[in-house]
Amino acid sequence: MQRFTGRLTDTGRPALAFGGDYNPEQWPEPVWAEDVVLMREAGVNLVTVAVFSWALLEPVEGEFDFGWLDRVLDLLHSAGIRVDLANATASPPPWFSSRYPQSLPVTEDGVRLSYGSRQAFCPSSPDFRRAAGALTEAVVRRYGEHPAVVLWHVSNEYGCHNAYCYCDVSAAAFRDWLRRRYASLDELNAAWGTAFWSQRYSDWAEILPPRRSGTWVNPGQQLDFRRFSSDELLDCFRADAAILRAHSRQPVTTNFMSFFAPLDYFRWAPELDLVSNDHYLIAADADPAEELAMSADLVRGLASGQPWLLMEHSSSAVNWQPRNRAKAPGEMLRNSLQHVARGSDGALFFQWRASTAGAEKFHSALLPHAGRDSLRWREVTELGAVLGRLGELAGSVVEPAEVAIVHDWPSRWAAGLDSHPSVDVDPMASTRQLYSVLWRSGVRCDFVPVSGPFTGYRVLLVPQLYLLSAEHARALAGFAEAGGTVLVTYFSGIVDPADHIVTGGYPGLLRELLGIRIEEFFPLLTAESVPLTGYGNGRIWSELGRTEGAEVVAAYAAGPVAGSPAITRNPVGPGPGSAWYLGTTLADRHLDDVLARVLAEAGVEPLVAGLPPRVEVVRRRAGTTSYTFVVNHTGEPVPVGLAGTELITGSPVEGTLLVPPGGVRVVRG
Amino acid sequence: MQRFTGRLTDTGRPALAFGGDYNPEQWPEPVWAEDVVLMREAGVNLVTVAVFSWALLEPVEGEFDFGWLDRVLDLLHSAGIRVDLANATASPPPWFSSRYPQSLPVTEDGVRLSYGSRQAFCPSSPDFRRAAGALTEAVVRRYGEHPAVVLWHVSNEYGCHNAYCYCDVSAAAFRDWLRRRYASLDELNAAWGTAFWSQRYSDWAEILPPRRSGTWVNPGQQLDFRRFSSDELLDCFRADAAILRAHSRQPVTTNFMSFFAPLDYFRWAPELDLVSNDHYLIAADADPAEELAMSADLVRGLASGQPWLLMEHSSSAVNWQPRNRAKAPGEMLRNSLQHVARGSDGALFFQWRASTAGAEKFHSALLPHAGRDSLRWREVTELGAVLGRLGELAGSVVEPAEVAIVHDWPSRWAAGLDSHPSVDVDPMASTRQLYSVLWRSGVRCDFVPVSGPFTGYRVLLVPQLYLLSAEHARALAGFAEAGGTVLVTYFSGIVDPADHIVTGGYPGLLRELLGIRIEEFFPLLTAESVPLTGYGNGRIWSELGRTEGAEVVAAYAAGPVAGSPAITRNPVGPGPGSAWYLGTTLADRHLDDVLARVLAEAGVEPLVAGLPPRVEVVRRRAGTTSYTFVVNHTGEPVPVGLAGTELITGSPVEGTLLVPPGGVRVVRG
Amino acid sequence: MQRFTGRLTDTGRPALAFGGDYNPEQWPEPVWAEDVVLMREAGVNLVTVAVFSWALLEPVEGEFDFGWLDRVLDLLHSAGIRVDLANATASPPPWFSSRYPQSLPVTEDGVRLSYGSRQAFCPSSPDFRRAAGALTEAVVRRYGEHPAVVLWHVSNEYGCHNAYCYCDVSAAAFRDWLRRRYASLDELNAAWGTAFWSQRYSDWAEILPPRRSGTWVNPGQQLDFRRFSSDELLDCFRADAAILRAHSRQPVTTNFMSFFAPLDYFRWAPELDLVSNDHYLIAADADPAEELAMSADLVRGLASGQPWLLMEHSSSAVNWQPRNRAKAPGEMLRNSLQHVARGSDGALFFQWRASTAGAEKFHSALLPHAGRDSLRWREVTELGAVLGRLGELAGSVVEPAEVAIVHDWPSRWAAGLDSHPSVDVDPMASTRQLYSVLWRSGVRCDFVPVSGPFTGYRVLLVPQLYLLSAEHARALAGFAEAGGTVLVTYFSGIVDPADHIVTGGYPGLLRELLGIRIEEFFPLLTAESVPLTGYGNGRIWSELGRTEGAEVVAAYAAGPVAGSPAITRNPVGPGPGSAWYLGTTLADRHLDDVLARVLAEAGVEPLVAGLPPRVEVVRRRAGTTSYTFVVNHTGEPVPVGLAGTELITGSPVEGTLLVPPGGVRVVRG
Repeated sequence: MQRFTGRLTDTGRPALAFGGDYNPEQWPEPVWAEDVVLMREAGVNLVTVAVFSWALLEPVEGEFDFGWLDRVLDLLHSAGIRVDLANATASPPPWFSSRYPQSLPVTEDGVRLSYGSRQAFCPSSPDFRRAAGALTEAVVRRYGEHPAVVLWHVSNEYGCHNAYCYCDVSAAAFRDWLRRRYASLDELNAAWGTAFWSQRYSDWAEILPPRRSGTWVNPGQQLDFRRFSSDELLDCFRADAAILRAHSRQPVTTNFMSFFAPLDYFRWAPELDLVSNDHYLIAADADPAEELAMSADLVRGLASGQPWLLMEHSSSAVNWQPRNRAKAPGEMLRNSLQHVARGSDGALFFQWRASTAGAEKFHSALLPHAGRDSLRWREVTELGAVLGRLGELAGSVVEPAEVAIVHDWPSRWAAGLDSHPSVDVDPMASTRQLYSVLWRSGVRCDFVPVSGPFTGYRVLLVPQLYLLSAEHARALAGFAEAGGTVLVTYFSGIVDPADHIVTGGYPGLLRELLGIRIEEFFPLLTAESVPLTGYGNGRIWSELGRTEGAEVVAAYAAGPVAGSPAITRNPVGPGPGSAWYLGTTLADRHLDDVLARVLAEAGVEPLVAGLPPRVEVVRRRAGTTSYTFVVNHTGEPVPVGLAGTELITGSPVEGTLLVPPGGVRVVRG
Repeated sequence: MQRFTGRLTDTGRPALAFGGDYNPEQWPEPVWAEDVVLMREAGVNLVTVAVFSWALLEPVEGEFDFGWLDRVLDLLHSAGIRVDLANATASPPPWFSSRYPQSLPVTEDGVRLSYGSRQAFCPSSPDFRRAAGALTEAVVRRYGEHPAVVLWHVSNEYGCHNAYCYCDVSAAAFRDWLRRRYASLDELNAAWGTAFWSQRYSDWAEILPPRRSGTWVNPGQQLDFRRFSSDELLDCFRADAAILRAHSRQPVTTNFMSFFAPLDYFRWAPELDLVSNDHYLIAADADPAEELAMSADLVRGLASGQPWLLMEHSSSAVNWQPRNRAKAPGEMLRNSLQHVARGSDGALFFQWRASTAGAEKFHSALLPHAGRDSLRWREVTELGAVLGRLGELAGSVVEPAEVAIVHDWPSRWAAGLDSHPSVDVDPMASTRQLYSVLWRSGVRCDFVPVSGPFTGYRVLLVPQLYLLSAEHARALAGFAEAGGTVLVTYFSGIVDPADHIVTGGYPGLLRELLGIRIEEFFPLLTAESVPLTGYGNGRIWSELGRTEGAEVVAAYAAGPVAGSPAITRNPVGPGPGSAWYLGTTLADRHLDDVLARVLAEAGVEPLVAGLPPRVEVVRRRAGTTSYTFVVNHTGEPVPVGLAGTELITGSPVEGTLLVPPGGVRVVRG
Repeated sequence: MQRFTGRLTDTGRPALAFGGDYNPEQWPEPVWAEDVVLMREAGVNLVTVAVFSWALLEPVEGEFDFGWLDRVLDLLHSAGIRVDLANATASPPPWFSSRYPQSLPVTEDGVRLSYGSRQAFCPSSPDFRRAAGALTEAVVRRYGEHPAVVLWHVSNEYGCHNAYCYCDVSAAAFRDWLRRRYASLDELNAAWGTAFWSQRYSDWAEILPPRRSGTWVNPGQQLDFRRFSSDELLDCFRADAAILRAHSRQPVTTNFMSFFAPLDYFRWAPELDLVSNDHYLIAADADPAEELAMSADLVRGLASGQPWLLMEHSSSAVNWQPRNRAKAPGEMLRNSLQHVARGSDGALFFQWRASTAGAEKFHSALLPHAGRDSLRWREVTELGAVLGRLGELAGSVVEPAEVAIVHDWPSRWAAGLDSHPSVDVDPMASTRQLYSVLWRSGVRCDFVPVSGPFTGYRVLLVPQLYLLSAEHARALAGFAEAGGTVLVTYFSGIVDPADHIVTGGYPGLLRELLGIRIEEFFPLLTAESVPLTGYGNGRIWSELGRTEGAEVVAAYAAGPVAGSPAITRNPVGPGPGSAWYLGTTLADRHLDDVLARVLAEAGVEPLVAGLPPRVEVVRRRAGTTSYTFVVNHTGEPVPVGLAGTELITGSPVEGTLLVPPGGVRVVRG
């Protein structure tokens, strides 16, 4: 597996990538020249080209028109701007959908979606796959050796609008996938529990996707359909990536979308030469900067800790939320450097020049509708300059954290199925709440897959890991036995990978590790809470149970489960290992207190102690050189004890760095 | 009509049924032996078998495999456990749906539902009916004489997910049903009022189910489609019941769902040998125990006052609500005995052993995931013991109440149609509010159909009986003329059975009885209320009108209908009869006051006077022996003036019974 | 173009129309005679007949049955009641839909709607158009010379339930429409911006309606589909109107629905001989009387200031809102005279006699279910008498206002498309807020199309005119240059008619006129507000920008755009002209203050100064005679300085008219 080496944008010396999606086909050719001039003015060194160019590149099936793209690439090359070239398969053109209507995706209700927006293809469609492969091959044969091209961009945001297709072609592909997964129909029947509700299949041909039914479709069928759907799109990627690699030596990527639910990125990431990611702030989020940090930490986990590339974010507002907040002065720079601090070797944007037509015309861009005479453009050029001063960071790696959060897509899928104890159980919410405690307290954190490895960490946080294999459960126990601290939140370890309950007391797969035994769940109603003997009240969830070896940190203090343990701590192994359990949802400030104790016992401290909340400190490292980022999200200047050279201002730092309100500083030490 | 005789579970002496759905096909055969041992430990004496076993019993069309079921029944029989045997038609297997896709139901939008969940069949499908009949015949031929089988369980919760089908086959069946209902197309056109909106049918073949249209489909068409849909499923039941009766002498039932909207159970009940019912608490209900009591009283009404059977309830949480509340310690026993107190000859559960896979794995069971080492199991065995001590109650009947509430499905359907004065008008809400007053005040209540008979009652409550025939209106008047008290709430007596307004002043069909004349409805907006001259404020509804003979108990005190009567009382007939009218929705405490006056005037008193609210007292009677149940839903011990023998504790009661908090006592007197 | 002349109901002397929809087919023939007697009692002089009579008039395709309608028309004529005769095409009968299922409309999801309600036809269906034309011809040949018929009523509320059809026939019609709009496919591709998202069309045949897709369909495609859909129904009208005009000299109308979103009534109105309108109060509206006034002012604008006809309103509650409020005593008369005051030459109702069956049986009528013995009937006869006394107003015109609001359907459509900065931007809400200020302050207002002319006005209000052509932008500027005052609210002038952003700073098309330059939108989140330096806080919207010539009236006082202009005033031209800009949404009371200043500077005053809010004063004029209406919506008597003769009471007015609470007075002066 080839990994990003920090050289994508290298024009003599290491550089961080700066630029974005460049869609010149929206503009008359004279504008292109102006584009390149302005790109140089802003310091742009990498642009993504041709993502949505299929209709122009192949106006008639099998007939390609590369003339315009030749001119674009040559123009960019002449200006020293590198290109992340798309294979242009992201959205098939109208002629394709019109000629191959069976390639259009079908909803669970049987509605065949129309074209006219984007990404209107069934992931299993043989017509789509054949046509995409042909286009990919034509593109790579044309540009595989083009000197401007430094990266291949396969498709775009896979599954954003077509993650699930329920058509007959998909049904057949689903059956093929199931035949590979299960040795026999009996095995499938057992895994899905079809003995109940008279669902036993007597022939593979009877199996369908989980289309709209009168009530809940078999959960095994639903879960396997999610696994299949992620794999099916991954197959699309694999096929096109293989063609690109056969004709070019440049690395291949596709842009992820952080915690995007439908795709198991931990299965995808090893197939990419470089992990890249799209990230957009959510206006209604309680703390968008915190959410950004969490996203970036996940992406670094997907990249196994290596540098990755922020393929898309926005200079300001997007257009797809109900109310699209613009970025305040300084926010774009902070956002960009947050990503860099957490491992991105650059900051790319969607898109270069704001569209004047089409569905994304109100999406911000590097060059806004208002043009150069705008605060936004001045901020863009400032960002380009700042990134230019940070070029030496390219290729450096983020210093590993002492705390890791376990994240697992199949478990999220299973936990999110219907007919469960409570709709309020939400692994993402539990993950975010834990992350928030760490972020506000300045403790760095990695994301790791449930398969590990967990070596090097002091604390593992395991939020609502509902589905778990016996092997992975053993690995968690092994971590604690080796001296680590595990903290598990409720509704973890309930089912095996087939979504079968492990009986004998919950959480069957983690009972021994946690030293508890839960007899029955007592979900709480909306607005209901239950007092604890410590750490406030519990919300959403409570349980009837007892400890079997664990110490009770807090118990339920009233209600039907009064006396049952709510928070426990189980000493594990011969060393300092322990396994904590949180049986309910605490208020943030009480969770702060619990985690403070957990972290203190495990000896975990922030990189820089004593800072106020929302002053973010992260460190990248290249050999013996460290780069410490301080992002001040507060409205006050903050002194930070650091020494070295500040790279943005170019000033020496002697013991104390004063970071201005809303400012960012990077100290080489 | 054969009626339940209390002998289903009789193994020498009368017994109440205890047990539940037993789905052994989910488990390997060795587990079955353990099941039977544990059933005996818990006191189980009746289990329902094979509800969802079609796929196993008939793995290939026309080829039956009864081996496993033979062994299950023999095993149960050897342990003295009786069987309620299903004809196994509740859910057709995948091979069936796959071979006969036209048998799958179709939504009003034209979406043909898929299989993969349960109950995926069109009620009118000839393929389904033929296959169900063949299976029923095979099952009854095999087990019609089996000594363990004491009851036949036809299908399961008819209409739960397929009450309405809009396919072409259903359309043809609907037309056939209409031809039977109407002597001619002219008569149908008149009944539906098709002269308006250019809807006149010129050929029967033009008539369709009320599929999705641009706006409101003809209300007559909608109402008749509901009647048809209830009848169509009833035909399914009738056909299979006839086959069972042809080959077995055991009684036949199917499990109702209390107030389930789509089925007119008053039309269904006479077709059953034994009325059985499924009841589940609603976690978000304001008072689940009150709702349970109301349900049980309805079911007893369906059973014409005879004993009935609680076929399913839950030991704790279910899995199909947004937030599934578990039952507190003691609650399961109270729930079970509430049902018994109100006429059930036992308490069965869904299901025996908690599933580990499938859509209902988070539904509680008698044997929980945690196994025997659990509070739940201890409560189950305690319940078995308690029911064992109450065996002599089997066959006794609940003492008739002095108050009855009129319930009518077609009127509910019609009242719930679109394009009405206010979406807040809700006959179920009005019924519940009246029931709540009675329940909290300790006054017992029956439910009766609008066709009566009403003999024996002092008070008839008539909540929002929008649709009414002239004949039934006369019967209500006759009741008052004979000295009874009728209380009618607004939006009653508005239309005839064809949903035609009776003109000349509302409520046309009840004007004379009530001695009022309403000129016009004045529905209130959300959060709007109007002050009355007494009994607080009205919500949801007000009216412009005048009395014509009735006494004004309260009038509107402000707003556009100020001065119009809001609550009236009309003396009727030569005796003490009277007819009350409530023209608006009162707050609970004011409705309490109105009903207190109504009940006092009618001489209705609680069984035991002076008890605090939520202490439930009900009486069953067998000959001269009475069984008085006291269910204490409060958190305090409550003394109750009773004498006799308490059956649960076996203690004599001499004048005062002290019922512990949350406890139940049954006094034989 | 023939215009209404006030003679429709003239039976010797001028009269205002009074009556409504008369659907005798719902009743047996003996009722018809009673109807006519009661109509005369009430003073009815015009009824609309046969709107939904297709099924009766043409029971078999091509075979007509006019016998019953002959009798109805003769009966009405004999009583001197005029007839607005429908061509009866509003709703095709079941035999038609059953025989021509392709004529049924299809939703964007592909659901073909069923018949059974009303108006179930695809506007582009050739079968429907042929059948409607044949029926129209049969009707007009039969009744073109009938002496009772004074007006032709084509179809009914076009597009109420079938404004958009996505079937293949509509797709072909859409393509034909596009071929007429665009000279070439290249031009269409440019207009729709298909270069983005790979949407370029290579063949006209590839183009489809904006059916359900994975995400936002191309906005150009959506916008043109709305234009097409309005035009397609207009073609239906045109075709039938041409047939009527070929065989009859009576005027032709179809009933509009005020601000009904799907139809561009400014394109429709010139095709009508008489503009007629249906208006219903919205129960949940903050001030229904204000909304009524706004509607009536729009309709007068559609009629170019000429008299129009209120074709339908309601005597009391309707049946199609969630909670249908009845009208308080006096409200129906006030509503009716509000319409007359604002230009209607009468007041018609839906419908004459309340239905007893069908979907509209709970819709109020002139003759209620309660019959003649009702307050409603007494109010109806009173209204008939009052209208009778106002007959001389027929043909008079409303005195033009000094203030006009610009209204433009295509801009509303474009502004309402998806993927915009904020879902809270709502041109109708902005229009209403401005109108409300005027109405409460007694300042009269007209509605004008964006194409003008604007001559005669002092102030033009331009609420959220998102889409604007350069030509119309110039006309707005010309108005200010000529001395007028323009007030523009935010999100105006952003795009050209192809929905393309005008770049270089917002609002591109109005920057120069307003003397401002906005760099970037900063939409506010739900419940967020931003303080201004004056006039309170802004909600929904804020902006980063600067003035370029305008005076800052108020600026943002905090937040990311602090210092940017929020309210500005730009002096324009050599005279007193000015252009105001409102960059955010103000609270009502602050908008009152801003507009008070704007109106004062422009010299605009209420017709009668010093009146309390909600006392409505409007004036019609015929030659030198004026008719001043005063509608007192308050609960107090109000003195108004007027002189002349009051027509309702017949009393002379000498300087001061005392208008009773809730009363209406009309003074001829």
